[in-house]
Amino acid sequence: MNLLYAQSGGVTAVINATAAGVIAAAREHPQRIGKVFAAHRGILGALAENLLDTGSLDTAALARLARTPGGAFGSCRFDLPDVAVNPAIYDRLFDVLAAHDIGGLLYNGGNGSMDLVARLSTEARRRGIPLVTVGVPKTVDNDIVGTDCCPGFGSAAKYLATSMREAGLDIASMVADRGSVFVLEVMGRNTGWLAAATALAAGEDADAPPHIVLVPEVPFDEEVFLARVAAVVGRLGYCAVTVSEGLRRADGRILLEKSHDRAGHVQLGGAGLAVARLIHERLGYKFHWAIPDYLQRSAAHWVSAVDYAQAIALGRASVDFVLDGRDGMMPAIRRLAESPYDWDVVPVEAAHIANLERSLPPEFIAPDGLHVTASARRYLQPLIQGEVTVTTVDGLPDHRPFDLHPVARRLPEWTR
Amino acid sequence: MNLLYAQSGGVTAVINATAAGVIAAAREHPQRIGKVFAAHRGILGALAENLLDTGSLDTAALARLARTPGGAFGSCRFDLPDVAVNPAIYDRLFDVLAAHDIGGLLYNGGNGSMDLVARLSTEARRRGIPLVTVGVPKTVDNDIVGTDCCPGFGSAAKYLATSMREAGLDIASMVADRGSVFVLEVMGRNTGWLAAATALAAGEDADAPPHIVLVPEVPFDEEVFLARVAAVVGRLGYCAVTVSEGLRRADGRILLEKSHDRAGHVQLGGAGLAVARLIHERLGYKFHWAIPDYLQRSAAHWVSAVDYAQAIALGRASVDFVLDGRDGMMPAIRRLAESPYDWDVVPVEAAHIANLERSLPPEFIAPDGLHVTASARRYLQPLIQGEVTVTTVDGLPDHRPFDLHPVARRLPEWTR
Repeated sequence: MNLLYAQSGGVTAVINATAAGVIAAAREHPQRIGKVFAAHRGILGALAENLLDTGSLDTAALARLARTPGGAFGSCRFDLPDVAVNPAIYDRLFDVLAAHDIGGLLYNGGNGSMDLVARLSTEARRRGIPLVTVGVPKTVDNDIVGTDCCPGFGSAAKYLATSMREAGLDIASMVADRGSVFVLEVMGRNTGWLAAATALAAGEDADAPPHIVLVPEVPFDEEVFLARVAAVVGRLGYCAVTVSEGLRRADGRILLEKSHDRAGHVQLGGAGLAVARLIHERLGYKFHWAIPDYLQRSAAHWVSAVDYAQAIALGRASVDFVLDGRDGMMPAIRRLAESPYDWDVVPVEAAHIANLERSLPPEFIAPDGLHVTASARRYLQPLIQGEVTVTTVDGLPDHRPFDLHPVARRLPEWTR
Repeated sequence: MNLLYAQSGGVTAVINATAAGVIAAAREHPQRIGKVFAAHRGILGALAENLLDTGSLDTAALARLARTPGGAFGSCRFDLPDVAVNPAIYDRLFDVLAAHDIGGLLYNGGNGSMDLVARLSTEARRRGIPLVTVGVPKTVDNDIVGTDCCPGFGSAAKYLATSMREAGLDIASMVADRGSVFVLEVMGRNTGWLAAATALAAGEDADAPPHIVLVPEVPFDEEVFLARVAAVVGRLGYCAVTVSEGLRRADGRILLEKSHDRAGHVQLGGAGLAVARLIHERLGYKFHWAIPDYLQRSAAHWVSAVDYAQAIALGRASVDFVLDGRDGMMPAIRRLAESPYDWDVVPVEAAHIANLERSLPPEFIAPDGLHVTASARRYLQPLIQGEVTVTTVDGLPDHRPFDLHPVARRLPEWTR
């Protein structure tokens, strides 16, 4: 049988490490696994029969793939409709899989992707199709239920904590009489995992940046927040604040700077600006604000070695899951020990976790709602450990394109 | 005699490498140089007699200092008034220097700082004070005249070009039917050096990000710009744009996103947001925008080895300048060869370059004004070469505070 690997949703700095793990593990079973195809641009690529043959990637290319950010095969955002609503889309997908002798589908995504894994697994069983569908976790948001952490998160966490430590030293050296603030807006629409990670920059030092961490789990209270900012500036001359992009007021409204696109989707971004402006208007301080946006999830030049290892391990485990017939399952990380950190891989039922979202537990959030706790730091600390060597060409990371060949189509064209 | 070293204006990822160069070089001349004091928070700290004794920094601390971002001794923004307007401030400064037997002042700053160097040098000579004042260049903006490049620029350039390459792979993998754009806003109020540096991410590949580079030297033409964005999206499905923060329209107005908050106050966003919104509103594409702000000038985890070496070398050279009595001068980088890159240090008269600003030369800007040329890339390429080893503790760069002791005051208190 052949395997099909597909990337889904927002990509990460180590999603291709998972891909490399899948491909390398599959090659260790030449008796049971033929080719590993990759869907070009996610499940929509699979539906369009746009498949890439990963056989052209030699060992050196695989090693380079593992250290390349973005989704090397392309990703997409697509929710599989209910089979009762649109059976044709399932027909098509199974046709593509059958046409290319694909017996295992490895779907690398987040909460929504596990929904697809569960749906596809159920429908394949109902139709008697011998397909093994396995979910492979990834997300910088760290919000998948059933796993101790998610590949992609540790590297984004390391990047953001490093950035807060570095920028914190910058603003500390620029302290002026009138006081100054620095606001770092990080990803996290509904959960504050990445915001919490910036607290690692301060460690045990209560006077080190970030002085305040605002997460979506805690409704934003202007007055409480401003009083704390003023207190920190009074003590240190400056204040560094981390803001989750999805920060909300008590009535549920997201902070300023939202806009609607033509399709009516809310485009987020700008909670950091809103908070910075608020401080400026109410307290008069000089302000700087940074929004790393894609930079935080693509910084392959500064990934966490632990995250990188877990990304590869879960890719490899998903191949084992296919071989073991663990249909509709997702390999997850289980924390065995905190110090020294130890972990292993365990199976989780995709249907049990699909579309759920893991928020910061209450014990990770300080009672005043303006920072995270030592428990949070203990949880986060192991995930940012270690660095991965970066190969550079002309002073920049070597991210040349890969030599990937499209697989000849065997089916008629399909339109969505 | 003792030396006084002071940091001025916006700091960089390698300004402390210059400081370490100063301190190390001074220690090699125990017969001629006593202590190296650092002004706490720049020239204002010197005026307040807030001096720090760098003698407490041992060799290991100096090595760590060189790799620490921000200004370890504190910086400030302050322009020395004309002596005719405010002779008292000169009196005070010379009093502080005399009280601590300071015979050499090393002032580490940008264009404005060279004005202070020239003024102070002139006034000391007029008064017959045997002070040697030396300017030491630093700025991420790369806009100091008389030097081939400025310490701090190469590292910010490397960080931004790396970020564009990484984020470019991210957005390329997320291509959707409706088209998408990514806008990276970089520093540069009047000059496009940092924006130009992001072009290194693409190298010779015309289809690689960034597809468009907008610099303050070229007035922003909405229609020409939007037509190019549409063409790139038509060809590739996405478009990555670099925008200088100081981008201006033909009438000289800076491009800023204006929005109104609930109270009716105008909120100013950055040029990057303005450009992203413009694209979205006129062309309908999905957009992401990043503003690294302080992150781009403090990313000590990813500095250029060439920049780092030059920062140290100019610190060391400034001590030689003091010893050689090169009063009112600034050591500058001269480019001797491009490939392989070679450079040396030459003296420049501070008075000749003070307050001037070096823009991108016309031959570095593409005829259509929407990108930079191969000449620009040839100039920039050597400046981002090589990496510097980062020491980490618990997964983050080791930036513990330094053990610095205040020097006992010998003068009455001073108020500005």
